[in-house]
Amino acid sequence: MIVRPRPHWLRLLFVWRGSVLPDILPQLLATTAFAIVVTVLHGRLFQWKIPLNFVPFSLIGLTLAIFLGFRNGTSYARYWEARTLWGTVLNDTRALVRQALTLADAPSEASLLAARLIAFVHALRHQLRRTDPAADFERLLCVEDRDRLRPARYKPALLLLMAGEWLRDRRQAGRIAPALVQAMEGPLGRLTDALGGCERIAGTPIPFTYTVIIHRTIYLYCVLLPFGLVDAIGPMTPLIVAFIAYTFFALEALGAQIEEPFGTDPNDLALDAMSHMIESSLREMMGEPLAPQDAEPGAFIQT
Amino acid sequence: MIVRPRPHWLRLLFVWRGSVLPDILPQLLATTAFAIVVTVLHGRLFQWKIPLNFVPFSLIGLTLAIFLGFRNGTSYARYWEARTLWGTVLNDTRALVRQALTLADAPSEASLLAARLIAFVHALRHQLRRTDPAADFERLLCVEDRDRLRPARYKPALLLLMAGEWLRDRRQAGRIAPALVQAMEGPLGRLTDALGGCERIAGTPIPFTYTVIIHRTIYLYCVLLPFGLVDAIGPMTPLIVAFIAYTFFALEALGAQIEEPFGTDPNDLALDAMSHMIESSLREMMGEPLAPQDAEPGAFIQT
Amino acid sequence: MIVRPRPHWLRLLFVWRGSVLPDILPQLLATTAFAIVVTVLHGRLFQWKIPLNFVPFSLIGLTLAIFLGFRNGTSYARYWEARTLWGTVLNDTRALVRQALTLADAPSEASLLAARLIAFVHALRHQLRRTDPAADFERLLCVEDRDRLRPARYKPALLLLMAGEWLRDRRQAGRIAPALVQAMEGPLGRLTDALGGCERIAGTPIPFTYTVIIHRTIYLYCVLLPFGLVDAIGPMTPLIVAFIAYTFFALEALGAQIEEPFGTDPNDLALDAMSHMIESSLREMMGEPLAPQDAEPGAFIQT
Amino acid sequence: MIVRPRPHWLRLLFVWRGSVLPDILPQLLATTAFAIVVTVLHGRLFQWKIPLNFVPFSLIGLTLAIFLGFRNGTSYARYWEARTLWGTVLNDTRALVRQALTLADAPSEASLLAARLIAFVHALRHQLRRTDPAADFERLLCVEDRDRLRPARYKPALLLLMAGEWLRDRRQAGRIAPALVQAMEGPLGRLTDALGGCERIAGTPIPFTYTVIIHRTIYLYCVLLPFGLVDAIGPMTPLIVAFIAYTFFALEALGAQIEEPFGTDPNDLALDAMSHMIESSLREMMGEPLAPQDAEPGAFIQT
Amino acid sequence: MIVRPRPHWLRLLFVWRGSVLPDILPQLLATTAFAIVVTVLHGRLFQWKIPLNFVPFSLIGLTLAIFLGFRNGTSYARYWEARTLWGTVLNDTRALVRQALTLADAPSEASLLAARLIAFVHALRHQLRRTDPAADFERLLCVEDRDRLRPARYKPALLLLMAGEWLRDRRQAGRIAPALVQAMEGPLGRLTDALGGCERIAGTPIPFTYTVIIHRTIYLYCVLLPFGLVDAIGPMTPLIVAFIAYTFFALEALGAQIEEPFGTDPNDLALDAMSHMIESSLREMMGEPLAPQDAEPGAFIQT
Repeated sequence: MIVRPRPHWLRLLFVWRGSVLPDILPQLLATTAFAIVVTVLHGRLFQWKIPLNFVPFSLIGLTLAIFLGFRNGTSYARYWEARTLWGTVLNDTRALVRQALTLADAPSEASLLAARLIAFVHALRHQLRRTDPAADFERLLCVEDRDRLRPARYKPALLLLMAGEWLRDRRQAGRIAPALVQAMEGPLGRLTDALGGCERIAGTPIPFTYTVIIHRTIYLYCVLLPFGLVDAIGPMTPLIVAFIAYTFFALEALGAQIEEPFGTDPNDLALDAMSHMIESSLREMMGEPLAPQDAEPGAFIQT
Repeated sequence: MIVRPRPHWLRLLFVWRGSVLPDILPQLLATTAFAIVVTVLHGRLFQWKIPLNFVPFSLIGLTLAIFLGFRNGTSYARYWEARTLWGTVLNDTRALVRQALTLADAPSEASLLAARLIAFVHALRHQLRRTDPAADFERLLCVEDRDRLRPARYKPALLLLMAGEWLRDRRQAGRIAPALVQAMEGPLGRLTDALGGCERIAGTPIPFTYTVIIHRTIYLYCVLLPFGLVDAIGPMTPLIVAFIAYTFFALEALGAQIEEPFGTDPNDLALDAMSHMIESSLREMMGEPLAPQDAEPGAFIQT
Repeated sequence: MIVRPRPHWLRLLFVWRGSVLPDILPQLLATTAFAIVVTVLHGRLFQWKIPLNFVPFSLIGLTLAIFLGFRNGTSYARYWEARTLWGTVLNDTRALVRQALTLADAPSEASLLAARLIAFVHALRHQLRRTDPAADFERLLCVEDRDRLRPARYKPALLLLMAGEWLRDRRQAGRIAPALVQAMEGPLGRLTDALGGCERIAGTPIPFTYTVIIHRTIYLYCVLLPFGLVDAIGPMTPLIVAFIAYTFFALEALGAQIEEPFGTDPNDLALDAMSHMIESSLREMMGEPLAPQDAEPGAFIQT
Repeated sequence: MIVRPRPHWLRLLFVWRGSVLPDILPQLLATTAFAIVVTVLHGRLFQWKIPLNFVPFSLIGLTLAIFLGFRNGTSYARYWEARTLWGTVLNDTRALVRQALTLADAPSEASLLAARLIAFVHALRHQLRRTDPAADFERLLCVEDRDRLRPARYKPALLLLMAGEWLRDRRQAGRIAPALVQAMEGPLGRLTDALGGCERIAGTPIPFTYTVIIHRTIYLYCVLLPFGLVDAIGPMTPLIVAFIAYTFFALEALGAQIEEPFGTDPNDLALDAMSHMIESSLREMMGEPLAPQDAEPGAFIQT
Repeated sequence: MIVRPRPHWLRLLFVWRGSVLPDILPQLLATTAFAIVVTVLHGRLFQWKIPLNFVPFSLIGLTLAIFLGFRNGTSYARYWEARTLWGTVLNDTRALVRQALTLADAPSEASLLAARLIAFVHALRHQLRRTDPAADFERLLCVEDRDRLRPARYKPALLLLMAGEWLRDRRQAGRIAPALVQAMEGPLGRLTDALGGCERIAGTPIPFTYTVIIHRTIYLYCVLLPFGLVDAIGPMTPLIVAFIAYTFFALEALGAQIEEPFGTDPNDLALDAMSHMIESSLREMMGEPLAPQDAEPGAFIQT
């Protein structure tokens, strides 16, 4: 995720980092080169003049607009829903720690629950990015818990079960009344929902056929476009084709990036920074020392 | 559902599987053939020149855009709501199993509830696809339960009632306090909602009249289009007509596929994979052995 | 509501039932006749040539698109919200019956609650369609309940109060603990919300001024259109005007139908079928015999 | 709010009441008169021919479409959210009265709560319309309550506190168990939310800058338009300009009306009718006599 | 936030305050000056005539519409969600104060909770605007609380924990039953959610790449536009370019303002006024004297 103050309007025209230009440069150069060739040949192919004008492009533009607008809106909705689910993770781990400190009459035991919740947050991140949570578990959990988690396929779900077991043990020891257990079941259930929601976004892409249709339409459009423009605007054709192709390719590339918001592309969610922040906030509530806040990195990119 | 990493941009242009081309090929060929005939005859019909230009098509394009954008957005909303409802099924069966293990002081009896919940998941899938759940019930339930379910018309609803009866028996045996019964009523109620939501999507189509109007408008548009283009772009007419018809037909076909998300079209939801996954996750929480994870199939298609 | 499998693409072009053609035929014929007259007179009115071309129509098209897209989306949102509210009625009556059977230790008395809930469902339908619920009440309720309901203005609200009284009587008889009464208040409250939601949709139309502006814009557009086309496409004018007018009139007529989803137009919600289905599902949970399932009617229309 | 059956399509063309024509007549006449002048002068200004054609207008149309579509959708969303909040007021006052009658074992005291809730509904209406609630309070509340409310700045919030105090008194008298008090806190909290939601809509307009930009763009567009059309369509220019200006001005005026849905414009919410209806429904549940139902007024307008 | 009655339609054309003109004046002047130069040179650059017409601009307009409409809708959604979250802060602090007065049998101690809640509201505002809350804490809290808050990184979260501790102390003193503690956990949890939601909006911008693409497309469009218009409309070119550039630049600037709704731009949320209002409403419920209501400021701007 790129977090930076809005640059001056002149500078914004020439920003390189955070643009998707690097990703689409090959296609863009190829399209522009082709447009130059068409312009030089005056739209002729082996002596045969391709008869095209702007009409087909404004007709096709119609369905392209529908496709691209839909794809764009849907990708962003996935991105923002994923962000909101991580917001729920923050909110409900905070709520559970507050409740462990104020509803259960066992303040010294709250740190065990907090550790499992922090481990849940990191385990969720590792599951979504398919990385190994062992180092974080080592840091946070006791040996028995780690042994139980190691063979598990759905580690975050198991950690929520272990949070429920903490609650059961307190209840069976008479440290918390049933009505208050019920109050703590609320955030626990919402964490279960957030976990399932993240799995849903990670596991269910936008129907693949959309990607195929949009991709084909854009490329066919950009290949035919020089023939449609060359008679009217002559030598300006390559510039205009490059301009239009840039907006189409950039829209498509950006959509592909944020459609899968848990990756590590520059525009994906900053899961590292967020889990770090959640851990800090929970530790502060527990009265534990915090890790130092990261210095603002120069590149404006959080991962 | 098609789950595959995004192919290279060149390869994506020629993908066959996952495209809707096979479904719309007859119409597309017919339309293109007609456009060729019109082009060869220079837009004449029995010596009479059909006078048309691009104007009517950009005017009609207006309502087409409204219709298609609406249809597309609505179909996808149904698809995503259906997916979210299945996410609720995962979340709340997980929550109930966690609660059975930590709120009821009868851990050995939790497996009976888990079995009924797994049976509920499979029964829901079978109801939505109108298939026979007997094999799954055989595998999961005792004889009495199966006998009670056999004549039932609304099997998943009955299984949720049986989950409620499990809870009643534990409560009457004094193994769980009323306030904690209330906590377990939460996920049980949300499963009832998810069941009703799936029935709603399966039973209430998008108003049929939309399908009729969109279909007619698209076909009339594509039949008239060659007459409107032939004077301006001559021999390029069939190519452009084929291109425009492809985007319209593909949009319509895709909309029809994902509008009914519980079917077995390539872009429909992977109910098989999801019920398998839910069963695995619940079994892992119960400490039971899991079925081996499916090898990633070569065709990228989950059902 | 029209429920039918998607017809073959050729057949779909000539479907009569389910299209809105019958509703808009007079206007469509009038518009087309006018276009024929204009074409025959070559756009002259009493020797004066009306000077118009396509430009005004693409400018006006802009606001028409905004209006129609808005009207269409809003009408469908009302339709779908109404459907979802009826889904809530199904879900929460099911939940209440399940709870009556498993939370209250008085299984034999559950049928009284179930009868009041079924009566609520039918009363809601009758209130929304302004029909007389007496026959359904006769079938379901005892004499005292019927006498109490007869003079009432808000019958469904009173039936929910009577459901609450059932709960009060069980609680005062010591058959259900307060915490479980609280659990049953959840679905009861959501039924109250669904009732209020249906009253809201039935009683609050889309601001009438939208209907007026859209109607006027469409008709003025279609009356002026032949003058704008006749110079360019001559004898094709009536066909194109008829085509464009068909899409506009059909969109408007469909919007007017689904905007009030509780009526009995072909595209309205199937309240009869839904209340029948809810009654069947509740009876099955109670172990009572079910009415036979309706044979699929040939006409594909549910009311 | 205008509630009337849909008039016949011919009559709908000439409806005066419910149209926004009266509001926009001055601007519309001014614009049309200017267009007539431009047409008579053939687009000349002091001998200088203003060179304009349709191109700038279709380019500007683009951003106008974005602005107007956004403004329109947002205004309606505010209108509908306000209506839904008033639906919540109905639902949750009904729920509280039902609970007062069935959860608290003090039926004779429920009428005190009902009176405070009815007073809350009227107080909310008066606060939103900045009118004086004294007459309604006089009719509904005892002297002490009125004295307490008189100096208050946030009267509806105080009435909800007084509803809570009713609950506290019943609880302290042992007439209602804590778990049932908790059940009644649900609707009470949702009334607090509905109150805050209405205050939010009433107090936070759509950012004023939108109004400014849209307004300027529309007027500049309509002033320049005759110069762009006069060469192409000559004497038809004033008619077309009037038509296009009508749709733009009407859209803007309607947006301004429903953006603030609590006013007394013809398209605003019928707060009077709604509070009357809520009072009737609550009285019917209490078994009290109802005010006679209003005869349907001839003008179709509810306030 | 600008709160003012809608000015007369003529006056609205010349409003300065509340327009974004001041922000975009430099770019607008530069663009217009460039258009004047192009017009004077008749589209020539060093004797070379730039061949362009309107076609490329209507094609590019397509993607611009998608981008701008998306950006605009998303920015407003963030603005409105932020406003709704602050509405939640109002609603749930009110609910907690009401509950402290009616559920806990310790009315004299409620003021301690109210003070912490008011401090929470101010702390949230200060955190979002990165200002120092010390003055507000000084006014509201005792020395111990202030000492505990001073080193904290997440002050509002800590204040919610302290509200929970108030509840714990009352419960341990036997002044409130567990079921009622549970009722108070509801609003406390929703305040936690509102806090996390504000942090989410403040910390997660719209993907930066959107800003880059939109910015570049708009500027390139406006720089090329004079060449495309000069042949057709000659000396009117600068006026039209200025008009189109104004709408584009204004849309972009407004989007950038409301995208970050917690700032102090004229169109940002009035956090000062809102926290002041919340404090007043809570004090009124507590029976404490209120600060005098602000006189309506002449400039219509709330911060």
